[in-house]
Amino acid sequence: MKPNIQHSFQQYYQNHIRISGSNALLIAVSGGIDSVVLAHLAKAANIDFHIAHCNFQLRGEESQRDEQFVQALATQLGVPFHVQRFDTETYAAANKLSIQVAARELRYTWLEETRIAHQLQALATAHHLQDNVETVIMNLCKGTGIAGLHGILPVVNRLVRPLLFATRDEIVAFAQAQQISFVEDSSNLTDKYTRNYIRHHVLPVLKEVHPEAIENFGHSIPRFQEAEVLYRQALEVHMKKLVEKRKNEWFIPVLKLLQATPLHTIVYEIIKQAGFGNAQVQQVIDLCKGETGKYIASQSHRIIRDRQWLVITPIENEESFHYIIEKGDNEIAGNFGRITIQTLPAVPVEIPTDASIALLDTKHLEFPLLLRKWKQGDYFYPLGMDKKKKVARFLIDQKLHIAAKEKVWVIESNKRVVWIVGMRIDNRFRVQNNSQHILQLTFQPA
Amino acid sequence: MKPNIQHSFQQYYQNHIRISGSNALLIAVSGGIDSVVLAHLAKAANIDFHIAHCNFQLRGEESQRDEQFVQALATQLGVPFHVQRFDTETYAAANKLSIQVAARELRYTWLEETRIAHQLQALATAHHLQDNVETVIMNLCKGTGIAGLHGILPVVNRLVRPLLFATRDEIVAFAQAQQISFVEDSSNLTDKYTRNYIRHHVLPVLKEVHPEAIENFGHSIPRFQEAEVLYRQALEVHMKKLVEKRKNEWFIPVLKLLQATPLHTIVYEIIKQAGFGNAQVQQVIDLCKGETGKYIASQSHRIIRDRQWLVITPIENEESFHYIIEKGDNEIAGNFGRITIQTLPAVPVEIPTDASIALLDTKHLEFPLLLRKWKQGDYFYPLGMDKKKKVARFLIDQKLHIAAKEKVWVIESNKRVVWIVGMRIDNRFRVQNNSQHILQLTFQPA
Repeated sequence: MKPNIQHSFQQYYQNHIRISGSNALLIAVSGGIDSVVLAHLAKAANIDFHIAHCNFQLRGEESQRDEQFVQALATQLGVPFHVQRFDTETYAAANKLSIQVAARELRYTWLEETRIAHQLQALATAHHLQDNVETVIMNLCKGTGIAGLHGILPVVNRLVRPLLFATRDEIVAFAQAQQISFVEDSSNLTDKYTRNYIRHHVLPVLKEVHPEAIENFGHSIPRFQEAEVLYRQALEVHMKKLVEKRKNEWFIPVLKLLQATPLHTIVYEIIKQAGFGNAQVQQVIDLCKGETGKYIASQSHRIIRDRQWLVITPIENEESFHYIIEKGDNEIAGNFGRITIQTLPAVPVEIPTDASIALLDTKHLEFPLLLRKWKQGDYFYPLGMDKKKKVARFLIDQKLHIAAKEKVWVIESNKRVVWIVGMRIDNRFRVQNNSQHILQLTFQPA
Repeated sequence: MKPNIQHSFQQYYQNHIRISGSNALLIAVSGGIDSVVLAHLAKAANIDFHIAHCNFQLRGEESQRDEQFVQALATQLGVPFHVQRFDTETYAAANKLSIQVAARELRYTWLEETRIAHQLQALATAHHLQDNVETVIMNLCKGTGIAGLHGILPVVNRLVRPLLFATRDEIVAFAQAQQISFVEDSSNLTDKYTRNYIRHHVLPVLKEVHPEAIENFGHSIPRFQEAEVLYRQALEVHMKKLVEKRKNEWFIPVLKLLQATPLHTIVYEIIKQAGFGNAQVQQVIDLCKGETGKYIASQSHRIIRDRQWLVITPIENEESFHYIIEKGDNEIAGNFGRITIQTLPAVPVEIPTDASIALLDTKHLEFPLLLRKWKQGDYFYPLGMDKKKKVARFLIDQKLHIAAKEKVWVIESNKRVVWIVGMRIDNRFRVQNNSQHILQLTFQPA
């Protein structure tokens, strides 16, 4: 025997909606079978609710008939009734919207205002199992992946769908058994063409495949919703292991990433947050296997391969962007220009005076070095001085204009500035007569 | 520009199939466009393979034509060719199978034998993206939940599908561009009625919903496969936290289980392994919220609510089954009968002589007590004796017949037998004149 819909409703409501007490719901009732049945079920379940009806005035007398019907229903059930008449056609024309889109905008705006005005906890609509199957089929056709499978959710913020568990057949059977009257939903105003096409052409052929196809499909949707919760839980674990956030940059160790399973999805979910899509996943994997310094870009972010790291960095945030210089690197190139790196076997006879060449005693350096834009608060010991100086002050003294100052890069070793690139090294890292290991950096501007 | 199918094939093969070296594949070739294109792609990718063709002799001259065509293809590609002619109709009649089922059985048995005989690493079939969409739609109609979404997998043991990434359009375009000839697959032998119905009636209407519907849907399937991997990973974590295995019984702490998210799916995945289904999930949740001693059963297992535990126990393993008696319990009931438990304020004036009543000094008891079937190796100190005795010996002395012996239960306190239920208590736990706290157990057989 099939369980009674009233019992299923209360169980579903208790498990998934859980909004009780006074002023629980504002139920949107068109007068069609689904929303009328929802109102009856809610009444029998002792839920405290109001009824709201939108009259879009698109079908003349029929619209008036529907409004009166819903008002009578509210009186019958003894619940407060709210109604709004919209001049939908004028609104659509004024805002250059289709009638469908205009009606939906007007509807949800007014319903939400009404909910708030009457201090009701949530707005309830009468979407049911078959609506949800239609939504998931639309999503599958659009290719929305795992997120498309959950379809319509029972609760999204202050919007709830307490009838999602019910099949159309169950709703019809209940209306018949209880002799509940309703009006014909002749408008399907909130449905797009696609949804109606699926309803009238796709669902019937699926029923030919399997007589219980819609029920079977529909009952799988809550399973997909929960599967997505588990998916997110596992993803969270991978993200914690793989993504290190430093300010607004993300650092991902390449080798660890390549060992992660399932790779494609993990890469997708990481880069999605930086404006990349499924199409870039293979590029990112190739980046992991490719050379340092290469990058791919979205509208908002760059993903840069930097030695053992993938670095995801916001484009507008160039100042915080940096390059890593590891021991043994020969060259580093980027939008700042190019720095070539050589190890010298001994202190050269003549120390170059060219400011674009830096000679450093590696004894004091800690790798990796960081190449980054200078920032307020930076200071260093300019070569030849034993007192520290703010980099900002130094740049003023150099008489750099603002645009030029914004292009100044520094190299940092364990939080100490080593070199104002192309301008002055730090005194602490200078080469002395007894220096054993010398690094020569040569800067070419972009 | 769309990527070249040969390039996509090699990338897909490298990422998902990864079978290289000599004697890599046995490719099953019917002569139809899909399997012929697969053979050509494999050849161009330098994969070492043989071709196998099944001649089911169901279509007279056409069957002969197909066999000759595939043989010629093998010669053209310079690869070994294996063929088998089946008397499909006789086999189907002899085994009372439909022609379709008979052909599939014959096909896979012979292909696998051939693969092994020629020491080939894997068998390859030419299933493509559209086949996979059909499979997933069939599964959705059947309601197979999350597991149904992965459809056809690229690798299952020694069976591989290297063409799963390709759309039918890509395959046709490649055949045309390369002027590859093939025969018409007029039999669709391995396809059931349902699959053909979906191909001819469901997919065309989905294309009306969205022109790229099949491609979008199909490209989501590998995402679903990976989503399922993440699903399993998260599930594994929950299982480790929730399920404690003791021999062949599983213990699940009720409170912890009820707090787990997503509850329905976690319960489902736990009980699935004991032969329960989706329909029992709510019953199990109710069991968690209900009384001790209740249980639900599958063909093979019972799930019993036993105080703070759910215990999943194999039915055939009745001996290992047990109930837990906590301090303060008033009653324990089950298939053994019923035991009522009372605390007495003082030693009764008259010690009852009825063997179905046990008076115990709680001073010596350690809770929880265990109620379980007696087993070989059990011993105790029968009331009035200070020498221990094997329970087996005791039961023989009581002149119990075998069936009755199998129904004897004991109560155990910290591995010491306290009571042979309804027969004799242990001397060590007897009430004495100075006993302060007395437990009276009264046994009623089932």
